[in-house]
This record gives sequence, structure tokens and C-alpha cells, in this order.
Amino acid sequence: MLKLFYATGSCALASHIALEEAGAAYEAVRVDFGKDEQKQPAYLAINPKARVPALVTERGVLTETPAILAFVAQCHPDAALAPLDDPFAFARVQAFNSYLCSTVHVAHAHRRRGERWVDDDPSAIEAMQRKVPANMTACFALMEREMFAGPWVMGEAYTICDAYLFTIAQWLESDSVDPALFPRIYAHRQRMSERPAVMRAIAQERS
Amino acid sequence: MLKLFYATGSCALASHIALEEAGAAYEAVRVDFGKDEQKQPAYLAINPKARVPALVTERGVLTETPAILAFVAQCHPDAALAPLDDPFAFARVQAFNSYLCSTVHVAHAHRRRGERWVDDDPSAIEAMQRKVPANMTACFALMEREMFAGPWVMGEAYTICDAYLFTIAQWLESDSVDPALFPRIYAHRQRMSERPAVMRAIAQERS
Repeated sequence: MLKLFYATGSCALASHIALEEAGAAYEAVRVDFGKDEQKQPAYLAINPKARVPALVTERGVLTETPAILAFVAQCHPDAALAPLDDPFAFARVQAFNSYLCSTVHVAHAHRRRGERWVDDDPSAIEAMQRKVPANMTACFALMEREMFAGPWVMGEAYTICDAYLFTIAQWLESDSVDPALFPRIYAHRQRMSERPAVMRAIAQERS
Repeated sequence: MLKLFYATGSCALASHIALEEAGAAYEAVRVDFGKDEQKQPAYLAINPKARVPALVTERGVLTETPAILAFVAQCHPDAALAPLDDPFAFARVQAFNSYLCSTVHVAHAHRRRGERWVDDDPSAIEAMQRKVPANMTACFALMEREMFAGPWVMGEAYTICDAYLFTIAQWLESDSVDPALFPRIYAHRQRMSERPAVMRAIAQERS
């Protein structure tokens, strides 16, 4: 059975939602970042990057949200979570997920994870934090205007992109950005929060 | 015909190499970052993110290196650039490429693109720059130890990961990191530089 290692409030929620949408047989295992469990030998043996998500499969461990999302979609074709038979449409899904992981998540991470990119310099950390709202606003404005087809990210079909966008969109308030600035993505967040799979994943992470 | 928009010395080289490896029919179009062409209306109409690579296809524009690489592999199955029929092996390819785009490329970008994350604060920019060598060293040490199977990234089979790793490994010297610290990846760089497809892509970008 698949085993998903996640941390509360992390991007692992996207993979968690995808597993629920797929009807996958899996177990969710919490990694307590408050106790630095991700840096302990037991977890490093699973994911030496000391990050979540990590998905343990019978063939080995997978990491990185875009990879796990596409894997879940490919292993559960009946759930139709990605356009698997259309390389162009699949690449659009992947481009969206790549943008979230390499640009949007990174923009957000400069608020609380500044020490990744700066050593022992509180004023530099604060300088990074100050720009987070503007960067997150720019990212979401671009997605709202150019990338979000509606009603789902890719248009009429729900895909793995929706789980990932929903997960990161939930961080806007903590990044001091008003989500109502992006009305289509804001409505998407509401629509997502009413899906049974999303409710199950969130309930499990909060339990 | 496909049209690849690239900038010299950028991560677009990975897509360029993949197109050459695939034997794709394409045209390469240089975007001159020195003249800020990526911020001009003509290019923003192609890629509103003002970044490269962008791959113009007959169905629309694709962006983000991991997405373009997988697309090239899927559209040219005879070139065998990715394990297309094995979701787990394909996910490992994707996880590697995701790590390059979301962590390694981002670590590198803090040297010359610090203004993405900080406004008007030269000392914060310098603080970011100071950590780039340590971060790039940590990333490459992890890849050398945990992720690089050898002789190619995924083992015996050459994949799109090789083009992407090669591209980013070329940045080590400019990031003040000695590539010889990672002997297996260093040997891979040499092996890559002898491939005809790699030589053609580089020659085209330098012409």
C-alpha cells in the first residue's frame, strides 16, 4: 500500500487530495516539523531532502509534488485526473504544476524559510519577507489572467492542477495577500473546498 | 514546425538538447536578455512570464523546462528519452527534473537574480549571493550521493534528465563551486559534451 508522508499546512496536501480523488489505497503519515522530525535519521532514510511530500511505493520512494501528482494520475486512469493520452494537454498540466513548484511555492517560502538562501543576517531575512506579498500577488495575478481557464484550472476537466493550486492558494492570507483580488481563483478555492475528496484529505490532516 | 525561444547560457539549453536528441523539426529563436527582449510586448505575447524556454507548437505555447522535456520525449517515442510506459520510472524522471527546477535552479538564481526576492537592498542581495556556493554544493552533493545512478542520471538509459543536469552543472564554476567535488556528475558532464546532439545545440546557441 502507498504511504504518503506529509506535514500539516504543507504542499503535501496536493498529493493527499490527489490520492483521495483517485480512490487510491494509501496510508497518510504525519511528519512533525515542529519537532524537526524531517531532519531525523528515520525520515532522512525515506527522503534525504528532509522535505515533504514523500510517497513510498512498492518500488521505491517518490518525491516532488509534480512528480507524485502525475504518478497518481497515471496509476489511476479511471479517475481521469490528467489528460494522459494527449501529450500537449499533459504538458500544459505539467507546465502549470512546474510554475507552482518553481516560482509560486518559492516566492511563498521566502517568508518563513529565508534561512535557506541567507545565513545569519536578520535584516536580509526581513528584506525577503517584505517582498513576499508583492511576489505572491504577481504570481496569482498572472495565473488569474493567463493560466486559469475555469471553472477548473485546465477548463471543463478537473485535474491534478486543481489540487495543487488549491493547496497553495490557501497560503495567501498568511502571506498578507487578499485572495479576493483574484476572483476566479477565489471562487475555485470555494468550489474545491466542497469536494468530498478535498474535505477528506483536510480532515485527515487535522485529525 | 516547433519554435524554441531560448537565451544564451539559460536553462533553455536543456530543451534545446532534447529537441536535438529527438531529431525534432524545430527552429531555435534567440531572446536577447542583454536587450531585455524578454520583457518586450512581442515576447510577452508568447510567454507572459518573461522567461525562457518557451516552445511554440501548432496547438499553443508550452513553458517550463520539465514540461517541455517530457513533451519532447512523449512526441518522439522512438528516441526513447524517457520511460514513457512505466509510471514509476517516469515519476522518478519527473522528480529529478522537479528538483532541478524548484531547488537547484532557484539556489543558483539567488546569485544574479536576487532582485526577484528583495527590493532595493544591496546588502540583502549580497547576503543571498554569499550563500549560493554553499547551496549549490549541497544540491550537487545530494544528487551525486542519492540521485545520480550512473552512467546516466537514471542508470543505463539516457533520458531527458541528462540534458537538464548537464545544463545546470555548467553553472557551477560561475557559482564559485568546483565541479570536481562531484566526480560522477563531473564525468557525466564530459560524457554529455561529447554527444553530437549536445554539440549541435551548443553550437547553435553560440552561432
